[in-house]
Amino acid sequence: MSTQKQRLYLFDTTLRDGQQTQGVQFSTQEKHQIAHALDALGMDYIEGGWPGANPTDTEFFDAPPKVNATFLAFGMTKRAGRSAANDDVLAGVLNAKTKAVCLVGKTHDFHVTTALGFTLDENLENIARSIEYVVEQGREALFDAEHFFDGYKSNPEYALKCLHAAYDAGARWIVLCDTNGGTLPDEVAQITRAVIDSGITGDRLGIHTHDDTGNAVANTLAAVNAGARHVQGTLNGLGERCGNANLTSLIPTFLLKEPYCSTLQTGVTHDALAGLVKTSRTLDDILNRVPLRSAPYVGASAFAHKAGLHASAILKDPTTYEHIAPETVGNARIVPMSNQAGQSNLRRRLSEMGLEVSDKTDLSRILDRIKDRESEGYAYDSAQASFELEARRELGLLPSFFEIKRYRVTVERRKNKRNKMVSLSEAVVVTKIGEQKMLAVSDSLDAEGKDAGPVNALARALMKDLGPYQALIDDIDLVDYKVRITQGGTAAKTRVIIDHEDGQGRRWSTVGVSSNIIDASFEALLDAIIWKLVRDGATPLVSQ
Amino acid sequence: MSTQKQRLYLFDTTLRDGQQTQGVQFSTQEKHQIAHALDALGMDYIEGGWPGANPTDTEFFDAPPKVNATFLAFGMTKRAGRSAANDDVLAGVLNAKTKAVCLVGKTHDFHVTTALGFTLDENLENIARSIEYVVEQGREALFDAEHFFDGYKSNPEYALKCLHAAYDAGARWIVLCDTNGGTLPDEVAQITRAVIDSGITGDRLGIHTHDDTGNAVANTLAAVNAGARHVQGTLNGLGERCGNANLTSLIPTFLLKEPYCSTLQTGVTHDALAGLVKTSRTLDDILNRVPLRSAPYVGASAFAHKAGLHASAILKDPTTYEHIAPETVGNARIVPMSNQAGQSNLRRRLSEMGLEVSDKTDLSRILDRIKDRESEGYAYDSAQASFELEARRELGLLPSFFEIKRYRVTVERRKNKRNKMVSLSEAVVVTKIGEQKMLAVSDSLDAEGKDAGPVNALARALMKDLGPYQALIDDIDLVDYKVRITQGGTAAKTRVIIDHEDGQGRRWSTVGVSSNIIDASFEALLDAIIWKLVRDGATPLVSQ
Repeated sequence: MSTQKQRLYLFDTTLRDGQQTQGVQFSTQEKHQIAHALDALGMDYIEGGWPGANPTDTEFFDAPPKVNATFLAFGMTKRAGRSAANDDVLAGVLNAKTKAVCLVGKTHDFHVTTALGFTLDENLENIARSIEYVVEQGREALFDAEHFFDGYKSNPEYALKCLHAAYDAGARWIVLCDTNGGTLPDEVAQITRAVIDSGITGDRLGIHTHDDTGNAVANTLAAVNAGARHVQGTLNGLGERCGNANLTSLIPTFLLKEPYCSTLQTGVTHDALAGLVKTSRTLDDILNRVPLRSAPYVGASAFAHKAGLHASAILKDPTTYEHIAPETVGNARIVPMSNQAGQSNLRRRLSEMGLEVSDKTDLSRILDRIKDRESEGYAYDSAQASFELEARRELGLLPSFFEIKRYRVTVERRKNKRNKMVSLSEAVVVTKIGEQKMLAVSDSLDAEGKDAGPVNALARALMKDLGPYQALIDDIDLVDYKVRITQGGTAAKTRVIIDHEDGQGRRWSTVGVSSNIIDASFEALLDAIIWKLVRDGATPLVSQ
Repeated sequence: MSTQKQRLYLFDTTLRDGQQTQGVQFSTQEKHQIAHALDALGMDYIEGGWPGANPTDTEFFDAPPKVNATFLAFGMTKRAGRSAANDDVLAGVLNAKTKAVCLVGKTHDFHVTTALGFTLDENLENIARSIEYVVEQGREALFDAEHFFDGYKSNPEYALKCLHAAYDAGARWIVLCDTNGGTLPDEVAQITRAVIDSGITGDRLGIHTHDDTGNAVANTLAAVNAGARHVQGTLNGLGERCGNANLTSLIPTFLLKEPYCSTLQTGVTHDALAGLVKTSRTLDDILNRVPLRSAPYVGASAFAHKAGLHASAILKDPTTYEHIAPETVGNARIVPMSNQAGQSNLRRRLSEMGLEVSDKTDLSRILDRIKDRESEGYAYDSAQASFELEARRELGLLPSFFEIKRYRVTVERRKNKRNKMVSLSEAVVVTKIGEQKMLAVSDSLDAEGKDAGPVNALARALMKDLGPYQALIDDIDLVDYKVRITQGGTAAKTRVIIDHEDGQGRRWSTVGVSSNIIDASFEALLDAIIWKLVRDGATPLVSQ
């Protein structure tokens, strides 16, 4: 029964701990964008940063995002030798006027004496007075117990005293932090139980983990299993070193897996969950990162089935090799082509492209062709559009729109007038469309007069004038270009994979293979154009 | 006491399950390279693939790697309606003549009836007869219990019967597989204990997990905690969908963390562990992947301390914010805001190249230069030779042997006399050595008259006649060529990394970056030649 479920609170720290990631520095505007994405997902708490610690965070708190979640400022417990009211760092945090404030404090005896140089009693006093002060100001107080697990292992009595100092001072949540990330799940479970046994109830207990041993998610689950009801983490597991607990992995587990889905209730609805992939990609877009294909639940490969045996079972029943339905998190199933694929896999791929092929000889011929090409170095599981063209070619369903007669590319590097070495690339492509021969030339200079290289020149010459087809290809953009050397047969070959997008937001990948990188690139470019013409139903002017 | 430790066996399936990753297709040569890296690390078992399933795997087993580890072939239990001796798929596996054979079989009632269409008894029979047959052939038999955890949850009695069928037939290891990756750590612990309670002892029990909920590592630990003594996984967590259990995360945990390091013994020595980062990078290099910065233990950011408070504490005592010493796994600390840590790293690297630099201003200038270049897209981690040249340049220790005045590369593709499209690449390079200007031209045709592309033509023209230096470069071979698109500054740039070898067996890597792939390649080629001349002590004829 839903009414019997206990509430599990989700706390996001992408904007604070996530920003500790090497190379990550959010702008104020990006912080707003992320806060709204988190709010739409259904977070209970959104930690915005440390007001006073840097100009961006201060600016962000000056004009905070309007969210339904409880928006928090992060800071540190007061230092020794001054009152909470007279601590300027703490004042900076409280001045942000957020409804809630999260203060980090030491709980590991070694850190108190080594890193801070306080006495153990001074530290207890600092925790108690700081939390009391936050509560007196009418704010919700959270206490991040830094290095708690290491502290507990070193001196359990003192570590627990620190927690109780904050608890007794009125902290809404006592958050156990595995700051260095080295604690393992069984230890987290056992120590969390010890904390609850000491009198801090689970409904005021939180967990904050890091992924330094690859166990951040499991450590979080271990604490929840032991009774903690507040979970801290970040989108995509962003965070210092190896990152924080990945909320993008945890949230689907809480909503879809036993025992959590039957016993706990979060603020994330199933509708919001179906937007999880999009939320994850939003963060990657902001960070200009390539999304991790293998990410649990949200990765592009998370529901990709390459093995032939798996792929054929998936066709009978998806639950045979899928732990959840991909659409529940906004993801999709992929059954890529590869030389391990069987006929059923192939039939499914073709059907998704609108090609219904049931004849076994046809399927077998296509498979043979794909296998042959893969042994030459082609890789069709990352180049679906080229795969479709190969299948069509084998089935006699590939129209011939135009013919490439020849091309030539030149790269020259020499000194310019100012005695500086500069490069210029130039390409000539000769095409025959119907009875008409077209000769196109292009250089590779970008808007600023810089050389963008021979593949750019070739792409521009190729797409410059395709006569009646020009209107259909004008909205094509090259968005990614990948090259690798493969061993195809006896000699080293170059494999080029190119991604294109069009005005309708479609994205497709094509592959070219040759011992000559320019030829391989040209082949992939050509496939990209032909795929677009096929998909848009262009009328062929020539047929071979 | 070391003698009281129990043996934990490590089983790597990078070459088999890892190859199920979308976009991954190892060549035979790459499989050899990876097998040797795994062997050097100290794996107990290396699974090579499925002989008979595809041409690459068959070729690999025809000439298997010479390793100390037990090298295995993977296959499937026999099908119903024929004897093990008459099953051609099983015969293909046994024909590979490996010392050990791992057979996967069903243990989930639903899969037996839905995916295979066998009766439950037939399946038990298939398992027992197949394992018996392998044992009769004098091989070590392993049984991968597919979907075991889901199977146990659906029908515990039947799932256990399947295990016992293999166990009683003489399987050395019964491996519990979480095939769909949806099982959580507490379930793994509980079910593994139930298996042991059913009479299968931990010293014959293994675990094989997938990362679909982000718990592959934790699930493995849970099974080991319950008593399993055989662990399957892959390097860098490669594998279908979200990947397999990451051995690169698990191995350091087993060797460095309690309770494992005191109670269990693996085949990995602490010396080998110090090469873990290198092993991890080897696989990424082969896959042409950008190494994951946040990877536990081995990621470039795993010991990066960005937060100001952390960085200053780290200077007092590294254990304040590090769960292990980075050098134990061959990693290094990064403190981005403090030049101090950077400088000692740099001094060590230079010293390894025979350059003893102790002047702080020199070190700081080199660091700045490297940082600048890395922000343009250069990657010196994988191009030590270019790094050495940059350091020498900054120190005024780089002789100028010759000067490139200009070059030109042309690629033409057109029909030959037999009406077949063929390509020809041609390069002209103009060099000045001392007062002499040399003009060299080369095409790119290999011994069989095939075009090897513009970079080949350029390399040949460049190395055709370097006058007095020619004797020193005659033994250089280009052995690998990698290209990646990077975001350097505002525009997309191409990064080329080239590996060369010489007659003395030295191998070195250089990097070039440009928006033009030909220019980037030329830069890397040039660095390779200059590095060789410096290392061989060539006498400069010009100085700039």
